[in-house]
Amino acid sequence: MCNTCGCHSPSSPLVVEVNKSLLAANDKVAHENRHRIEAMGAVGLNMMSSPGSGKTTLLEKTIELLGDRLRIGVIEGDIETERDAARIRAKGVPVVQLTTGGACHLDALLVSKGLDALEQQIDGGGLDLVVIENVGNLVCPATFTLGEHQRVVLLSVPEGSDKPAKYPSAFLTSQIFLITKTDLLPYFDFNIAEASADALNLNPALHVMPLSASSGDGMDAWFDFLMKNQ
Amino acid sequence: MCNTCGCHSPSSPLVVEVNKSLLAANDKVAHENRHRIEAMGAVGLNMMSSPGSGKTTLLEKTIELLGDRLRIGVIEGDIETERDAARIRAKGVPVVQLTTGGACHLDALLVSKGLDALEQQIDGGGLDLVVIENVGNLVCPATFTLGEHQRVVLLSVPEGSDKPAKYPSAFLTSQIFLITKTDLLPYFDFNIAEASADALNLNPALHVMPLSASSGDGMDAWFDFLMKNQ
Repeated sequence: MCNTCGCHSPSSPLVVEVNKSLLAANDKVAHENRHRIEAMGAVGLNMMSSPGSGKTTLLEKTIELLGDRLRIGVIEGDIETERDAARIRAKGVPVVQLTTGGACHLDALLVSKGLDALEQQIDGGGLDLVVIENVGNLVCPATFTLGEHQRVVLLSVPEGSDKPAKYPSAFLTSQIFLITKTDLLPYFDFNIAEASADALNLNPALHVMPLSASSGDGMDAWFDFLMKNQ
Repeated sequence: MCNTCGCHSPSSPLVVEVNKSLLAANDKVAHENRHRIEAMGAVGLNMMSSPGSGKTTLLEKTIELLGDRLRIGVIEGDIETERDAARIRAKGVPVVQLTTGGACHLDALLVSKGLDALEQQIDGGGLDLVVIENVGNLVCPATFTLGEHQRVVLLSVPEGSDKPAKYPSAFLTSQIFLITKTDLLPYFDFNIAEASADALNLNPALHVMPLSASSGDGMDAWFDFLMKNQ
């Protein structure tokens, strides 16, 4: 496995052509992944954000508070380490860690291996929700569909409300936009109205939910969304 | 320009080959860029971090407090918008905005165009420091050398101290590691010792500096570093 990030050089038309064929191959496997998730009885979510936006913490809280009503399985994507899977495993749900060995996003083929391992863990039992936590990166994961039914992009209050306009692709391709760590609003110059307006300007169908996994504010709307998507 | 991120698919050997040729071409232009920065009389810095780690704010404060002693020129890299260049321009220094149109990092060819524009702005005058603020992304920029003399990786307290181990490449290839927003330490479970140890484990030569552009703590060490590098 290559340890460099071969993200397309902004100046290279060659890579544009290679990307087209890569993405077509990826889409085919993603389509198969979607069927496999459906065969488990589940809906698939792809969670995308920068490192440290609170994806794993939100997932921990979601399992704690919704785990008795939803059978949740998790696929963790990271460049290195098993730390996130260990955190989720401690919550008692099936979890698989994928490490990309340098690459800045998951792709459908890697997720198909994650589904193999998840299927082994549940051993014929079903799931209601398969959450795929992507590599922490607000840019690259947006290009690669994994087999999810819905995409969730997270932006935390410390990151700043100017980010949807500056990093549009994740907001353009998601259905849900979670503004996380809202308990920190008193300490940061984050403007929820600006972040929401910029994101909705890119993608008017986006469902915006501000929340804090720490204080619990806004978590009911997130849980309602998850329950209604079953 | 392609709007997709063609970051290498973790499962594709084809892209590994394409990357090798791309990176060799990039290195050649980066070598020329380095000579052009030296011809201005300057040292080049490449600043890398996730979105919202405080690169632009640190740069604003650096210009405010060091601008009478160092002639600073700035090249801003973003996927979209001119917002960061506008912030730096307000500080009265030469600045060029590069937008990648989707790509998740700067490359040397794009920076060479930035240097063209910077040279026009200074019109034969010299600079002491050329700061290249990369696209907000903790992964992809690490692979592409731009012509810098030193790399600076930033990690802010809200992002979490586990990030050097999870996102190693930026820490492996940098000379300076700035732990930013230390004024927020009372509100976050961030462990400076853990972040430093994990980063130094990857790269024992890394110079670690915790600082806060907001409170001013640790800024003297950063300024000393900049002055001594002239």
